[in-house]
Amino acid sequence: MAPQVAFIGLGGMGKGVAAKLAEWLGSGKAPGYSGPLVVYNRTTATAQGFAHETPGVTAVATVAEVVPAKIVFSLLANDAAADAVLGDYLSARAADGASHPAIYVNAATLLPATVKRQAAAAAKAGVEFVNMSVFGRPDAAATGSLVAVPAGPAAARQALAPLLPAFAGRGVWDLGEDPATSASFKLIGNFWISSQIEVAAECLALGAKNGIEDSAVLTMLETFLPSPIPIGYARRMGAGGYSTETGFAIDLGSKDLGHIRARAADSACPLPWADVAYIHLLQTKARHGGSLDWGAMFLAVRDNCGLPSNSKQE
Amino acid sequence: MAPQVAFIGLGGMGKGVAAKLAEWLGSGKAPGYSGPLVVYNRTTATAQGFAHETPGVTAVATVAEVVPAKIVFSLLANDAAADAVLGDYLSARAADGASHPAIYVNAATLLPATVKRQAAAAAKAGVEFVNMSVFGRPDAAATGSLVAVPAGPAAARQALAPLLPAFAGRGVWDLGEDPATSASFKLIGNFWISSQIEVAAECLALGAKNGIEDSAVLTMLETFLPSPIPIGYARRMGAGGYSTETGFAIDLGSKDLGHIRARAADSACPLPWADVAYIHLLQTKARHGGSLDWGAMFLAVRDNCGLPSNSKQE
Repeated sequence: MAPQVAFIGLGGMGKGVAAKLAEWLGSGKAPGYSGPLVVYNRTTATAQGFAHETPGVTAVATVAEVVPAKIVFSLLANDAAADAVLGDYLSARAADGASHPAIYVNAATLLPATVKRQAAAAAKAGVEFVNMSVFGRPDAAATGSLVAVPAGPAAARQALAPLLPAFAGRGVWDLGEDPATSASFKLIGNFWISSQIEVAAECLALGAKNGIEDSAVLTMLETFLPSPIPIGYARRMGAGGYSTETGFAIDLGSKDLGHIRARAADSACPLPWADVAYIHLLQTKARHGGSLDWGAMFLAVRDNCGLPSNSKQE
Repeated sequence: MAPQVAFIGLGGMGKGVAAKLAEWLGSGKAPGYSGPLVVYNRTTATAQGFAHETPGVTAVATVAEVVPAKIVFSLLANDAAADAVLGDYLSARAADGASHPAIYVNAATLLPATVKRQAAAAAKAGVEFVNMSVFGRPDAAATGSLVAVPAGPAAARQALAPLLPAFAGRGVWDLGEDPATSASFKLIGNFWISSQIEVAAECLALGAKNGIEDSAVLTMLETFLPSPIPIGYARRMGAGGYSTETGFAIDLGSKDLGHIRARAADSACPLPWADVAYIHLLQTKARHGGSLDWGAMFLAVRDNCGLPSNSKQE
């Protein structure tokens, strides 16, 4: 019987995911699937070395050799590489005259527009396309503790499901039919992560310019991050809840952000994010008054991108 | 014996703190201090009503009547009110010819420049000044579960210490001698909180513009906030650790932020914070190369405010 699962792209993340997949297939825990895992990498020596050191893995030298598989995972470095490899795969499938059902699973972080284009090309060739973004670092991939965010045709997601426990130990967040939503979601997640870095950087810098040790700022983050503050505000914003019964009024918040910006100016510490948050508070005040909770700065963000107000208070 | 502790400013926060202080004084848990708590409010009826309903509280009608106290807490709405009341207090003390040691404790969120000016005015009148910013909402004040951040003369902080457990149930973060650092710290904390709101708002908006339910974004926040991501990056930035062994390279991060901005453009969803983070990544890349962890965007923030590089990798 031909191998059923193939994996393309053996970078730091790919190696971890592929190793866990091979182990999973070998263990018999995926009903309907068996090993070995066929791996392909554009640098062939990488695939050969990986197969040599990883039980249950067979290396191949051409994309054509993964065509027989029922499920092909792809985890490549960028949109251009991902486009090229999918193109090679679909060409090889056509050249083989292959018509068996196949599912192509992109796990790389690609533009939603790229994913949309790839899904259309795959569908045209009779291949179902699932975007399955993953969250986690290479060390999390190596221990099978990623989060996987699949989106694509229901039947394809169902066929894929028995394989996900191999590497998605921290959760599977199913986003439904449209592969592009998974790609967008991954970008939102990475935006959130980069925002945490920028927020912490600006807080540490303002501290350093005002005689406050990093350790004090870190104590604040360690105390407040697990507190109800960030999720509490996020939940209430999602629900359109801007009552000051549980929040802090825009007029008080904009006073404080004004103070923060004054401190930034006096200590020559540019804080672009304080400027943006302040402007969003003023915008919200101009349109909705100053007495809503400062979570209502979401109303300015919504307004600026054309979403209607979601306020339950008005 | 004259009352030893006074409290000025009975807004939502003040009432909670004052009630817990009165209870604490009455319980005998503060060695060297006893009740009743003397309260003053610019609207006298508020103080009278509060004293009527709160055991261990005595209302007074003038600032002059708090002069005999050893410790005077003040929690007022803004810098102008705080300036006016401290001025009244110091004038009354001078008019009385009072020379007993006294400690004036500001708990309001004021500009560090205001705090500096107030501390100087107090010192000139023989009064020690402590800035003791507090974190927490009125409901946390009412249950004694605030964080208190005192800074001021060592002897004054020592004298204050037995009173803090009354209301600072979540922690006392002592910042040392300079009252202004406590005021700056409070601004950094409120900047961090407002940043969490803005980050969540932009993530929710980008989701809404790309077919992703709020609930999926909230699931992501609920999963990643308690994860090692935000604190891990913050700690490594503080330590100048930008190795990609545990992080994500600038070149990969700037590719992703480029994708995020493209998605923002394509879905007409302004994301000013993505723009800032992207520019900081490019700035870091220009000066330090693209292979450091993307936490190195802190180097751009540091550079922009005149702090030296803290990189241990270079």
